[in-house]
Amino acid sequence: MIGKLLTFEEAKRAVEANFKAVFLGEEEAVLLEAYNRVLSEDVVSPLDIPSFNTSTVAGYALKAEDSAMANEDEPVPLKVTGVVAIGELSKAALTKEEAIEVATGAVLPEGADVVVAAEDVEREDNTLQVYIAAVAGENVRKQGSDIKKGVVVLKKGQVLGSSEIGVLAALGLTQVKVEKIPMVAVLSIGCEVSELGKPLSPGESFDLNAYSLSTAVMECGGKPVYLGVVPDDKAAVAKIFRTAVNSTDMVVVCSGDSVVFSVADSLGKLVVNGIAVKPGKQTAVAVIEGKPVFMLSHNPSAALLMYHLFARSFVQRLGGRPQSALKSVSAVAGSRMFSAKGSRTFVMVKLMFDEKCRLIAEPLESVGVVSDLAGADGFVEIAENEQFIDVDQEVAVLLFRGLAGKA
Amino acid sequence: MIGKLLTFEEAKRAVEANFKAVFLGEEEAVLLEAYNRVLSEDVVSPLDIPSFNTSTVAGYALKAEDSAMANEDEPVPLKVTGVVAIGELSKAALTKEEAIEVATGAVLPEGADVVVAAEDVEREDNTLQVYIAAVAGENVRKQGSDIKKGVVVLKKGQVLGSSEIGVLAALGLTQVKVEKIPMVAVLSIGCEVSELGKPLSPGESFDLNAYSLSTAVMECGGKPVYLGVVPDDKAAVAKIFRTAVNSTDMVVVCSGDSVVFSVADSLGKLVVNGIAVKPGKQTAVAVIEGKPVFMLSHNPSAALLMYHLFARSFVQRLGGRPQSALKSVSAVAGSRMFSAKGSRTFVMVKLMFDEKCRLIAEPLESVGVVSDLAGADGFVEIAENEQFIDVDQEVAVLLFRGLAGKA
Repeated sequence: MIGKLLTFEEAKRAVEANFKAVFLGEEEAVLLEAYNRVLSEDVVSPLDIPSFNTSTVAGYALKAEDSAMANEDEPVPLKVTGVVAIGELSKAALTKEEAIEVATGAVLPEGADVVVAAEDVEREDNTLQVYIAAVAGENVRKQGSDIKKGVVVLKKGQVLGSSEIGVLAALGLTQVKVEKIPMVAVLSIGCEVSELGKPLSPGESFDLNAYSLSTAVMECGGKPVYLGVVPDDKAAVAKIFRTAVNSTDMVVVCSGDSVVFSVADSLGKLVVNGIAVKPGKQTAVAVIEGKPVFMLSHNPSAALLMYHLFARSFVQRLGGRPQSALKSVSAVAGSRMFSAKGSRTFVMVKLMFDEKCRLIAEPLESVGVVSDLAGADGFVEIAENEQFIDVDQEVAVLLFRGLAGKA
Repeated sequence: MIGKLLTFEEAKRAVEANFKAVFLGEEEAVLLEAYNRVLSEDVVSPLDIPSFNTSTVAGYALKAEDSAMANEDEPVPLKVTGVVAIGELSKAALTKEEAIEVATGAVLPEGADVVVAAEDVEREDNTLQVYIAAVAGENVRKQGSDIKKGVVVLKKGQVLGSSEIGVLAALGLTQVKVEKIPMVAVLSIGCEVSELGKPLSPGESFDLNAYSLSTAVMECGGKPVYLGVVPDDKAAVAKIFRTAVNSTDMVVVCSGDSVVFSVADSLGKLVVNGIAVKPGKQTAVAVIEGKPVFMLSHNPSAALLMYHLFARSFVQRLGGRPQSALKSVSAVAGSRMFSAKGSRTFVMVKLMFDEKCRLIAEPLESVGVVSDLAGADGFVEIAENEQFIDVDQEVAVLLFRGLAGKA
């Protein structure tokens, strides 16, 4: 039996009040495997970038003060004592009134503070005539000017995308410490569903929810652990709940059955037992051995919806990942959408453009549940105190399609 | 030497004119592994959902016509001939003036066309009194009413997210045909860069571009194949180009060197040789043995930018994936941003909120290249004929940070 229904907001608060975000620990990942993982510590640069003073032009390294009196009419003569190619270090340091030839990108010899470009000098044998008064630092890319050794370059909690992976490579880091991936048990309870690959009994359907929810877990950075379909008897349910909380960090169950809810309550604490939402009224949440257990509907759209509204942020938090709400787009209601009195109502919609190029949110007929899932782009929320949303009214459509492959 | 610069749009057209999207072939993927893959064929339902007519209530299955004369005062008597539990098929068909007891979710016996709920009947032994005139189809979920066998449920080209994976599971499909993942060779040419894990020579830096670009390839659904750092001599470059086009579907090279461009031209056809953009002027594109070869800058931001503007859509197309532009957000310029005369200019920016809660796009100083990559959220585009964008002007910021982990 479902207890007194909580409102949507009360249910949210009840869930928040009963869980703490737990640090699951960190692990090493090699660089490309760290893509889309979350840094578990600040990354401090182990080196200066560039690691030496280098020349940005082909020319001559010298001491700026030696060229102070030079101008186009009165060049200053210096003695060329060597040459530095790319990848080399100068054998000798530069001393007063000397110059050393350098290639573009070459390391400056010790003692030099400027590079004069080849077009501003004339050379004959080992004598260089410098025609400009150079300013210290000119044509020099200074050691550490890009990134200094010891500074924090990336921060704990950052998700590693292409820029961040590039930065880690620039630091020479071949592996990096990342947050562990939360393991999320996914299972269905009930004799009307069958695991894929097994023959269907009359009236049974395949366990689609476990697959849509497993994928949704992956989308939030979790690893789904599918525990299969469990018959709806108390002993079997209690056993799988114990297994689930002992072997994973969080549990997502497809069952709107009050017997299942009471088993969860006997093993831990039922903190939500029915929510004034439509669809998804028979949603319950328990804490068992400190682990959150979300019991969602068998209705495929309701299960996915309730996952995104209630469970999703816990997968993200357990993974140290920034929490993100579902994206929404603004559209115009194509038909009147009715709410269920007193409940926060979510209407599945399909998006399309009309002849005026307006984005239209058309409510689905909801004749069938699988076809809804195949056809829906997202859903429109109607508040508890609204009766309906009228045709042509502007609506926000929360998108749960197309979370995959966004880049 | 770089040839006559093409404008941004000319370069786009030149690339388009010289490549055809190639079908790379398809492969089987097991269901959860198919997440974020692209369907290579329409999926036709192999079954009806539901697969039988089932009852949506607990009650009695009968022929509607037998109850036609019933009302609250004058019930119609029928003979109860059996019972059907969930998961069972009725042993006998239902004939005229009979009723068979059914559980919620049970399969309707052959011959029955309606279910009358338990509260609308009275039963004594095997005699049932029906108090309502039932309408055929009432309380029945018809076979195929959700999804009909033989209909196209998902279409070739759809990216498989949580809804689609759920739908495939509902159809009982444990594996599915998906487009092959395009293999993209990634390499750097030049003696100033070093592969990670090798010691840096003086003046060298680690090959960050290969890593940021490899990750960007993954973000677009490709598989990067890192071919390492190749010295900039003609024979070595020609050899690696041949290896790359023979072993992968597309090539991304970090090198702005005209020698490299001319080697590419000698092996195939150089279709872009310098673009009037800043940064990224020294970008070239060739076709070698029918494969696109993108030669991008060594400058990390320019390389990533040019990848997204030129190469990205080819990775998506080769993978049969819908092409998507980079996402953009609207912001306000925090400082004046200058363009390079006659070039399409891209200014790296950092996003932040000001005290009025406006989203501000602040141009980076661009003192250093790696730190830019660590600090930039995206870039602002300035058209060729604009001189600058002024403070407080509204701008669109193209985002290349945060493509990972969006869900």
